[in-house]
Formats: sequence, C-alpha cells, structure tokens
Amino acid sequence: MSRAFNFCAGPAALPEEVLKQAQDEMLDWQHQAGCSVMEMSHRSAEFISIIEQAEQDLRDLLAIPDRYKVLFMQGGASSQFAMLPMNLLGESTQADYFNTGQWSKKAIAEAKRYCDVNVVASGDDQNFCYVPKAADWKLSESAAYVHYVANETIGGLEFAEVPEVGGKVLVADMSSTLLSRPIDVSRYGVIYAGAQKNIGPAGLTLVIIDESLLGNASAQTPAMFNYEIAAKNGSLYNTPPSYSIYLAGLVFKWLKNLGGLEAMAEINERKAKKLYGFIDQSDFYANPVEIESRSWMNVPFTLASADLDKEFLVQAEQRRLLNLKGHRSVGGMRASIYNAVPEKAVDALIEFMADFEQQQSR
Amino acid sequence: MSRAFNFCAGPAALPEEVLKQAQDEMLDWQHQAGCSVMEMSHRSAEFISIIEQAEQDLRDLLAIPDRYKVLFMQGGASSQFAMLPMNLLGESTQADYFNTGQWSKKAIAEAKRYCDVNVVASGDDQNFCYVPKAADWKLSESAAYVHYVANETIGGLEFAEVPEVGGKVLVADMSSTLLSRPIDVSRYGVIYAGAQKNIGPAGLTLVIIDESLLGNASAQTPAMFNYEIAAKNGSLYNTPPSYSIYLAGLVFKWLKNLGGLEAMAEINERKAKKLYGFIDQSDFYANPVEIESRSWMNVPFTLASADLDKEFLVQAEQRRLLNLKGHRSVGGMRASIYNAVPEKAVDALIEFMADFEQQQSR
Repeated sequence: MSRAFNFCAGPAALPEEVLKQAQDEMLDWQHQAGCSVMEMSHRSAEFISIIEQAEQDLRDLLAIPDRYKVLFMQGGASSQFAMLPMNLLGESTQADYFNTGQWSKKAIAEAKRYCDVNVVASGDDQNFCYVPKAADWKLSESAAYVHYVANETIGGLEFAEVPEVGGKVLVADMSSTLLSRPIDVSRYGVIYAGAQKNIGPAGLTLVIIDESLLGNASAQTPAMFNYEIAAKNGSLYNTPPSYSIYLAGLVFKWLKNLGGLEAMAEINERKAKKLYGFIDQSDFYANPVEIESRSWMNVPFTLASADLDKEFLVQAEQRRLLNLKGHRSVGGMRASIYNAVPEKAVDALIEFMADFEQQQSR
Repeated sequence: MSRAFNFCAGPAALPEEVLKQAQDEMLDWQHQAGCSVMEMSHRSAEFISIIEQAEQDLRDLLAIPDRYKVLFMQGGASSQFAMLPMNLLGESTQADYFNTGQWSKKAIAEAKRYCDVNVVASGDDQNFCYVPKAADWKLSESAAYVHYVANETIGGLEFAEVPEVGGKVLVADMSSTLLSRPIDVSRYGVIYAGAQKNIGPAGLTLVIIDESLLGNASAQTPAMFNYEIAAKNGSLYNTPPSYSIYLAGLVFKWLKNLGGLEAMAEINERKAKKLYGFIDQSDFYANPVEIESRSWMNVPFTLASADLDKEFLVQAEQRRLLNLKGHRSVGGMRASIYNAVPEKAVDALIEFMADFEQQQSR
C-alpha cells in the first residue's frame, strides 16, 4: 500500500526522504562500508564520522554555544526524570517544578524520590488548559534548578516564552518541541528530548547541557545515568543506540537542506494556524486550550459528541489519516503535526473534518 | 560495493535476510501499515503484535519457563550492572561476583556503588586466560546473588558449564553468548544481554527474570531501572526502542527457520572448532585461552610478531574481511563469529590467514 498521513504523537512520522536514504543503504552504508550502520563498531572511523557529523549539524541547527555538551543517551525522557535530580542537586535538597500536564506530573513524581519538589505553579485547577501566568509563580530560594515541560504532548499545551526564573538553572523537557522552531539555548542549563517526535526513532534521547553543571552527580548515580561520564566519553561510554543516531543525523541534514529551524518554524506555524483556525470557526469541533498556550505540535480536539469518536476514526482511516485518537487520559482526538508531517497532511485532515461535520449535520 | 565478511565484536553482523526484509518494508510495514515500524505508536495493535510475537519466539527458542518475565529494556549491559544490585539486594548488603575479564571488572566496579562485593574467584593472575575451577571458588553466606559473565567478549573466554552455586540466585551477563546455543533458563535468576551481538541493533537489552525476584527494588531505584515496573507494564512503561525490538523479532524468526538453537549451536561449534583448529596447528598464530574455556563467539589470536598486525589488517580489508583488530586492552586480533557470521566467512578468514602466514615465511 501507499504511505498514509500519520498523526501519531510518538513514535511519529519521519521524513520520507530520510527513510528512503536509510532504505537505500540498509545493507551497505554509503554503498562502500560493506555493512549496515547497525553492524558497525561504534569505535570505527565510519561511525565516529556519523556521530560527529550528527552533533555538528545539531549544533548548527540550534546554534548551540560551545560551552554546552551534546549527549546522545538512552531511556527516553522518563530516564531523564531521575537523571536530573541525581546529577543536578549537589548539596541542595530541593528543586522547582512547573506542573502543566501529564508529563510534568511524571517528572515531579520521579524527582520526589530524590528531593523535595516545590511546585512553582500548576494548571490542574482547570484541567491543564493554560500555562500559569508569571505573577502566580512561586519560585523557591534553595532549589537547585527549575524544571518545566516546554510542550505537553498529551494536553497540547506549549509555553509561548521561555520562563524567566531569575538566574536559576532552567531545565526543559523539549521532547515534543525541540527542532520545531529556533530556541535560545543559552537561556537553559539542560534541554532534553526523547527522539521519537522530531528527531528520530525511539530509543535515543538528546541532552544539551551547560558543562558547568557536570560533576555533581550523587554517589548512588549509576554510571549510565551520569552526565559527566557520558560527556567525558563523547557519548561512547558503552555501545550507543548507533542506528538511531545515524537516523537522527539524516533528519538533521534534512532540516538543514530545508532551510533550518526558521524555515521549519514558518511551516509549522502555518500548519498549526490552519488547523486551529478551522477548529475555532466550527461549532462541531473544539480545542480546550487557551489560545496563547496552544501547542504547534499536538492539537487535541473534541467532536460535538463523544459518541461520534469511533465513526470519525473509522472514516479517517479510510482516508488514510492515521493515529488521530486522543490520549486515553484526555479522550477525543489529537493530531500531532510534527516537522515530518507535511502541510498537505494538515490540508487533507481539515478537508476530512469538514466533510465529516457536514455529513453529521445532514 | 558488495557486503563484506564482518567479524566485529559488536555492534555485529546481522543476518542478510533480516536486513533485506527490514529494507523491503522500511517505508511501509508488511506493505499495508502505511508507515514504517519506526513511525508506529508503541500502543498500536500493529506494534503490540510485533513485540508479543518477538517475546513468544524468544520463549520458544530458549524454552523459557512461564515463571520468567521477558523484558525489553534500554541502556545495554552497563545499565544492568547498576540495575542488578538496585533490584536484587533487598535486605542484603553483599553480592558474589566472578572476575573473569574486562566485563566482570566493570560489573563489579558498578555493583560496589550499592553493596559489598565478594569476588568468588578471579582469573587475573594469569591475564584472564582461564575460568577458575570450582574447587577454588569462595562463595559467601550472605550474598543476595551470584553474578558471572558467561562469555567475556574481549578475552574470548566462555564458561563451558553453568556454575553450581548451591541454590543461590544466579545472574548471568550473556551479552555475547545468548542465542548461540541452548541453555537451561531454569538454572538462573536473571539472564541479561545487550542486543548488539546475536539479537539485533544496539540500544535494546534483553532481561529474562524469575518473577519471584521482582518487587525488591530499593527506594532510590529510578522507575526506568526497576524490573518490576518494566514487567508490570509489559516493557511499555514508556516508549520502548521499537525499531530494535522489531529487528530482534526478525532475528528470532530467522533462528527458528534455521532450526532453532540446537541447529545454531552445531554450526557455531563447527565454526569455532575450525578456527581454533587452524590456529593451534600453526606456529605463526596463537590463542592464549585454555582449551576448555575458549569462547565459541570471540576468538582472539596473536601473530608471530605484533609488528605484523598492521599489515595483516590491511590485507584482510583488501580481502573484505572486516574488523579483525583486537580490543585495545588486549592487542592482537579478534574474530567475532556470532550467529550471523556464516561458515563461509570463517573459511575465507582461515584461507587468508594461511596465505598470510605463508607470505611471511617466504
């Protein structure tokens, strides 16, 4: 069959060009290595060139200052939830966390194993449909760092601006927003992201960390959870998820060829505006998130009646529009429109949504 | 170019049939999903069928008793080195470890973060060229478990038999031997293996654990390091390395089609015997490991003079025999002849070694 339009929240769509290149050289990298990237020693000159090029391209895309280390790790954001306190607390026993949705809650629960968590602000009073205003934040004095989830994949909520935390070390889970637009890396102590949205296949986690934060891991930190060990070994303390790093590198090249993150941001903003615009003009569809906090990447929406959800999904699949079911904790629908979801996919979705609405109002 | 014979210690050769199938369905799984396995939700019916089938095939291959859980994890054996004490110590403060080489030493160093390590026996007095005899083992009374590395990838050393530890919980790092021959899983508390030798791409780690050992993790154990959490969530506590699991599943099918582990063991034994036999009859090549402890998977050997190493590697590459350089900590050469390295690769290596020897003695 042909490829469908894939609105999955993650693992998510990858650029077709990237998959085609990977397919082409699956058995023989660059038609000269004599083996697949999967079969290469991670200490070989070939693989070192792959990981170094991937890092350089990522640095170029995000304009990462030299003082930051780029780490290719494993275990997803869920592993970072423990790594952060293990590595960053030092003498402190407290950390500040924003609570803006399901991923915030998971990060907080895990941090509580290792320290006191001060919740800076929470949107749970209104089912996480807004980013709390700065006037309502309660930052603590003694927190080692301030953590927030830049984009809540499940709720479809995104911080429009970098939180101003008065010189504190700012840590961001950017799993579902990294590479969707330019960011100012210098504002952060740590940025991390599971790969399976805008970066590459699941199983790879990117960490971008100010090197001044290295060296404070607690004695109980496993070697594989220690940022300093990863940094000192160029992400090769043990065998890395090498094929995923290779694919991430192809994605970075694809982004550069496309014009980088400013070009990508323009496309993403246009895609999001189209879809939200359509939802807002309709009396049949609705999105619960306040306008200034809406995610560019994950667009949850409900139908006029939840009884129609099943039929909507059946018809969507018939049109080859896949994975529109909302997260089980929220219900309704969700369209994830990451970098690799083309504008024509959004157009096709809107066309279908309009048809479905009309069909139901007949 | 064509595919070479790849003797890499890991990431290692994969079966060509597996790579070809992955290539064929890279953009559209089974030519009907509309997307790559990499782009599928890990909660989708399609992916659930992939991971369940992979687990079932692994259970069939190893005849895993029902009381064992199979976990698909991340982080390699190096992560297991910390997970084991974190999950298994319980009230105990001690664990027993065999020291038979570089991986044993790494496992011991990491365990020392969490408990006292009693070294049961060590081969370091003779540069790890033998497996210590049972008469020389010193098992402790209070150890929570006994750990050994079933095959030392770097030294080329393999336990010919399962250590008899008198009813203690036996834990084995089988990273470079799992699936190379039948084993009796019921003898073990935990078996673990990084995937990048006989299983699939790097980034996936298999854990086979007696379910009676679950539930004893210390409070400081990260959720992602907790076997019980992984088991309760069917390895889907968070997004797993889904593409690697898919490829591992293809490898399991390949093994089953080939006749399972007894058939594989016959081939592997024949390959190893050929290569050791050739080395032993030669005055030019040598293997330092005592005969009954020699690995079927990793065959280190030295040339008559280390001055010839470079020339040997250059000529080997010209013959498309790749990655024969020994580990930097040992020197010399190493041929890793895992499941996916065909017998004709071993034949080609022996032919080259004979030619090289003759050339040098002219």
